[in-house]
Amino acid sequence: MRRRRIGLSLLAWRVGMVLSLIGGLGGSVLAQDRPLVWSPVAPGIWRARVGVPEKIDLLKAARIEPRLAALRQLGSPPLPAPLRRSAGRIGDHRTFLRFPLNASEQLYGFGLNFKRVQQRKRIFNLHLDHYGNADSGRTHAPVPFYVSSEGYGVLINSARYLTVYAGTGLRRDSDRPPKIRDRNTDKGWEANPDSDVVEVLVPAAGVEVYLFAGPTPLEVVQRYNLYNGGGALPPKWGLGFTQRVPTLFKDQDVRREVDDFDRHDFPLDFIGLEPGWQTRSYPCSFDWDRGRFPDPAGFAGEMLARGVRLNLWLNPYISPDSTIYREVEPFTGSHTVWNGLVPDLLLRQPRESYSRHFKKAHLEIGVAGYKVDEVDGVDGWLWPDVARFPSGLGGEQMRQIYGLLFQRLSTEWFRERNQRTWGLVRGTNAGASSLPYVIYNDNYDHRDFITALVNSGFIGVLWTPEVRASKTAEEWLRRMQAVCFSPLAMLNAWADGTKPWTFPEVEQQVREVAMLRMRLLPYIYQAFSRYHFEGIPPIRAMYLIPGFDDRGREVRDQFMLGDSLLVAPMFAGQTSRQVALPPGDWYDFHTGKLAGSGGLIEVTPGLDKIPLFVRDGGLIPLIPAARRTPRPGEKLPLEIRHYGRRTGQLDLYDDDGVSFDYERGKYSRLRLEVFRNERGELAGRTAELTPGALNRYAGVSWSFRSE
Amino acid sequence: MRRRRIGLSLLAWRVGMVLSLIGGLGGSVLAQDRPLVWSPVAPGIWRARVGVPEKIDLLKAARIEPRLAALRQLGSPPLPAPLRRSAGRIGDHRTFLRFPLNASEQLYGFGLNFKRVQQRKRIFNLHLDHYGNADSGRTHAPVPFYVSSEGYGVLINSARYLTVYAGTGLRRDSDRPPKIRDRNTDKGWEANPDSDVVEVLVPAAGVEVYLFAGPTPLEVVQRYNLYNGGGALPPKWGLGFTQRVPTLFKDQDVRREVDDFDRHDFPLDFIGLEPGWQTRSYPCSFDWDRGRFPDPAGFAGEMLARGVRLNLWLNPYISPDSTIYREVEPFTGSHTVWNGLVPDLLLRQPRESYSRHFKKAHLEIGVAGYKVDEVDGVDGWLWPDVARFPSGLGGEQMRQIYGLLFQRLSTEWFRERNQRTWGLVRGTNAGASSLPYVIYNDNYDHRDFITALVNSGFIGVLWTPEVRASKTAEEWLRRMQAVCFSPLAMLNAWADGTKPWTFPEVEQQVREVAMLRMRLLPYIYQAFSRYHFEGIPPIRAMYLIPGFDDRGREVRDQFMLGDSLLVAPMFAGQTSRQVALPPGDWYDFHTGKLAGSGGLIEVTPGLDKIPLFVRDGGLIPLIPAARRTPRPGEKLPLEIRHYGRRTGQLDLYDDDGVSFDYERGKYSRLRLEVFRNERGELAGRTAELTPGALNRYAGVSWSFRSE
Repeated sequence: MRRRRIGLSLLAWRVGMVLSLIGGLGGSVLAQDRPLVWSPVAPGIWRARVGVPEKIDLLKAARIEPRLAALRQLGSPPLPAPLRRSAGRIGDHRTFLRFPLNASEQLYGFGLNFKRVQQRKRIFNLHLDHYGNADSGRTHAPVPFYVSSEGYGVLINSARYLTVYAGTGLRRDSDRPPKIRDRNTDKGWEANPDSDVVEVLVPAAGVEVYLFAGPTPLEVVQRYNLYNGGGALPPKWGLGFTQRVPTLFKDQDVRREVDDFDRHDFPLDFIGLEPGWQTRSYPCSFDWDRGRFPDPAGFAGEMLARGVRLNLWLNPYISPDSTIYREVEPFTGSHTVWNGLVPDLLLRQPRESYSRHFKKAHLEIGVAGYKVDEVDGVDGWLWPDVARFPSGLGGEQMRQIYGLLFQRLSTEWFRERNQRTWGLVRGTNAGASSLPYVIYNDNYDHRDFITALVNSGFIGVLWTPEVRASKTAEEWLRRMQAVCFSPLAMLNAWADGTKPWTFPEVEQQVREVAMLRMRLLPYIYQAFSRYHFEGIPPIRAMYLIPGFDDRGREVRDQFMLGDSLLVAPMFAGQTSRQVALPPGDWYDFHTGKLAGSGGLIEVTPGLDKIPLFVRDGGLIPLIPAARRTPRPGEKLPLEIRHYGRRTGQLDLYDDDGVSFDYERGKYSRLRLEVFRNERGELAGRTAELTPGALNRYAGVSWSFRSE
Repeated sequence: MRRRRIGLSLLAWRVGMVLSLIGGLGGSVLAQDRPLVWSPVAPGIWRARVGVPEKIDLLKAARIEPRLAALRQLGSPPLPAPLRRSAGRIGDHRTFLRFPLNASEQLYGFGLNFKRVQQRKRIFNLHLDHYGNADSGRTHAPVPFYVSSEGYGVLINSARYLTVYAGTGLRRDSDRPPKIRDRNTDKGWEANPDSDVVEVLVPAAGVEVYLFAGPTPLEVVQRYNLYNGGGALPPKWGLGFTQRVPTLFKDQDVRREVDDFDRHDFPLDFIGLEPGWQTRSYPCSFDWDRGRFPDPAGFAGEMLARGVRLNLWLNPYISPDSTIYREVEPFTGSHTVWNGLVPDLLLRQPRESYSRHFKKAHLEIGVAGYKVDEVDGVDGWLWPDVARFPSGLGGEQMRQIYGLLFQRLSTEWFRERNQRTWGLVRGTNAGASSLPYVIYNDNYDHRDFITALVNSGFIGVLWTPEVRASKTAEEWLRRMQAVCFSPLAMLNAWADGTKPWTFPEVEQQVREVAMLRMRLLPYIYQAFSRYHFEGIPPIRAMYLIPGFDDRGREVRDQFMLGDSLLVAPMFAGQTSRQVALPPGDWYDFHTGKLAGSGGLIEVTPGLDKIPLFVRDGGLIPLIPAARRTPRPGEKLPLEIRHYGRRTGQLDLYDDDGVSFDYERGKYSRLRLEVFRNERGELAGRTAELTPGALNRYAGVSWSFRSE
């Protein structure tokens, strides 16, 4: 017995000694944290490098083009003081980052989350994936960017799977350690005591970190978006209504669909063809199926003549039956997706093969955009993390950036034609602000869909709470009402063949809200122009509104669309709901009546209407209801609605709505101003900020809704 | 426009060129796979090294002592041929492993899973964590070991979080690529086509891989367990019944509990004290609370005199109020758990502090074992992966091994006293076979609990489907029936204060099954002796039984206990169930009647009984019912039950039941043999395989249950 005892404790002792002697199992893990050294890269934006950043990162993959002039206009605030206390270290071939948190600080962002808006005390593994019904970090846009209520934002520009401890880990060296409690007897014991640090693990020996100044959270977001190239400005038709038709629809079926939309007097600007437009799908051929579409060019032209554009579904994985398979084959990854090859989009050759084919077969005959599916996951389908690509990239990084690469590539095809596009994508990441794509998924929980919309504005992405099918007419109408106030008003009928009038008992209400969106085009387009020129997202969480106070009730079910419109969607089963109003008076959009002055109100809107509120002094420009958005140069009368008692002003943006000429100054701004005349009454007047701005409209009329 | 177009495509082209020129973003990722080179390390066991394995791995942490003599006895089969096709490579500071799969192969193991037994086509991230109700790899025992139906096993001996693609990833270089199908029109299209490879990502630049030969899956498991030191042999008292009392119980409360057990004539061998035994918990002091336990030594001695042992709950995280806090403090991690310091158990000093204190305060006064809680997770509580420890280890590896380190440390304390222990642990890993700890958790789904029991036998761990509270008397009885055929018959009443007789209407049935377990001690102890000497797990999945055929119905709800007893638990709400029988005749344990001959049978056992079946020729040794397991040297009459018509033989193991003297040959084997006498009738006889084996028993009686 003694022999064994000695044997064991000797062994124990040796292990201990050895470990001490070798100075640890990787002394590097013991490297001390060093303060991050922030170098200015643009006004109000700083970068710090830790270790040796990797050759590919998110912003490189997105190929961002910072809008420095716009950033200069936004001013040059000082480095946010708290972030002087951020630090990093390299060890164990990993990078460890820490950022301070004060006691009252709240955090937003960390990817496209669906359940929560406030992210403090959460742990994320940011990993591009289809959303699995938990805010774990596995999502369609695992953007490693967060916005602090203290008025700064941090981006970890890495294409790795990052583990984020957003105020959960308790450090021994904390200068604000929580009180220690005894669980035996202390009722105040907590499983997760408050932490004063955000820590991030980057599984690579170096990374680039960006710091964005405020002072307000909205300015943080503006700087983030402007640095990424400014927000995407959609073509006007992209803001109309869109329908996606069942998978195997033939050209005649699509014709009939468009006829039906016209017969039902329902708006339709573009129509989405699902997998069956091509000869093979899952994996894809990208070649038209001549059985279902004998004359693609003729068909696309005919649709265009009717003012209806085509959007093509695809996943980027190529079938052996594709006409470009052979040329792409040498430049694909080690693993397949449904046996389809995965082109390495970091290489020039497969990019050129795709470009040549897609331009010739699609763009040149009038195809207006794409729906890029299956770039998000599922683990069991997609290439595994052990995959490798000829460019040298591994499966992990390629997964984080693949959606970005395809968006960037396809965006260029349209740019070369000086033609804007508007499409759908299932996977994206940091740097995407300027990419004309809207995210969607299959989750279909209406409340979660709205929370995703709220969160999208923090991280430079766009999201649509698309409508598919519904159990009841009520759910149908509520979903249709909400989607009409999103970046993409879409009915996705690929599986169910639903139509806007699928529930006849609410057809009229659905048409009304869709037509309201068509009427609001000048207002929505204005919101997107601010996204492009100023980085202000069209959809804004309430937490981005100065002075907003949620009174401790996390607000995940309402948002601002543009500067003046507060949207509070109703959900099936609800007859009334609470709405949290920012400071000041707010007016009911529909009636013009005062709805409340800051704080919480309860509303009972009835089934026909979605609750919409306008801030005091808000101006809402509208055009007449129509089934199509205006054609370039089309002149329409402009109605300006004013709400409340305060005077107001709006510099209304407009351009041709289809080209990139606005980037070269070819756009107009018409100042719309509501003032009080000598009799003290509200009155409206216009002023041309750009010559001929007024000529774009067939007259301007004013209506004052609250007096 | 042209300027921009050229600008962009130039940029595109440059990126492409740059990437090609630098030969990839890390040419290393492109390193070719190399076949694994297998070197023999023990009979039927080989090791391959890829890159430079890390200084700490799972088997080092567990400090295994391979049982080479037993391995030699098991024979020296050749290297499993298919595994000659396994390969690995280093790149991107990661290790990539691949192992072949044939079309009909099935896989078992990959950690303690709760939902499924067959693991092919699954993806795991093996990560020590509390079980989150999905077989994701996050579990209390993320053992990176799998057993193939083809008769080999593979262990990836890494303390990292491993990502495993168990037949999901499709490789371009596959020699058995699945057929490509067009989802547009081919109804046979699959989202997850069959893959012919298991791939593993190790996030480190090197790893050690072990290969265990069969030829049967059971022999694979035997070799795995023997290499890890052989299975744990519990003290006999560990196989009795145990109750855990409410958190703040005082010594008088515990006395009363023991009185109640005796009054109710209910078995009780050891009792568990929950957090309140110590002055502080969450984090812990490890010091007796003199208010609740004024005289720990006297109390422990008194309990021992009554034949009841004490087991102490703890988590290893130390409170500033502990008497050993100061000496441990310098050797703890960068992060705390509930502000409790986390001792670096790889270092000698904190191990010695704990050892000194625990031996003096607990073992020397008679404490018999521990319940090691909270070494599994939760992410929000435990140290984050960014944590580091003075030994140099990072948070990730420390998390994977912490349970192993504490089990090994505490096991030594008892070994030094030549005293066996039997305890509970919430987190463990590969190498644990010989550690005398049983895993438990809070999940409490009865079906999942039984599936975990089934899976435990593949990966060298023990699991208890503990009972806490129940909604109905039926559920209560079904849970009690099942737990009595597990490695630890435990009622865990820490939160609810439940008693075995909590449902009076089934008190008698509960007592009967608990007493049946007490009667079965010689049989169960025999099963554990085979675990220790031969590596054969006491609980075996049906897939470990030669010739078993599940007829395509995955069997997750029944198992073998020992060599002859098939246990098919009933679940609340069930009145009948299917049982899959291995080849041959099987007999009802309770009635002795023929139950079936291989294949599926339907049984309707009624509420009183749990379905138990004995193989033809099976011998079941029993002792008289008693509330305590036998004391060392206590002589009891032995009843041998024989089932069926075939003759049978059992070499019954016995020893003092408390010490490690059996490791030095101090044990007995009594051959029990059933033969057919000259009249062709079944008869029994004994033979002493070790001198005086018979003297251990107060007589041997035979009963033949099926003739």
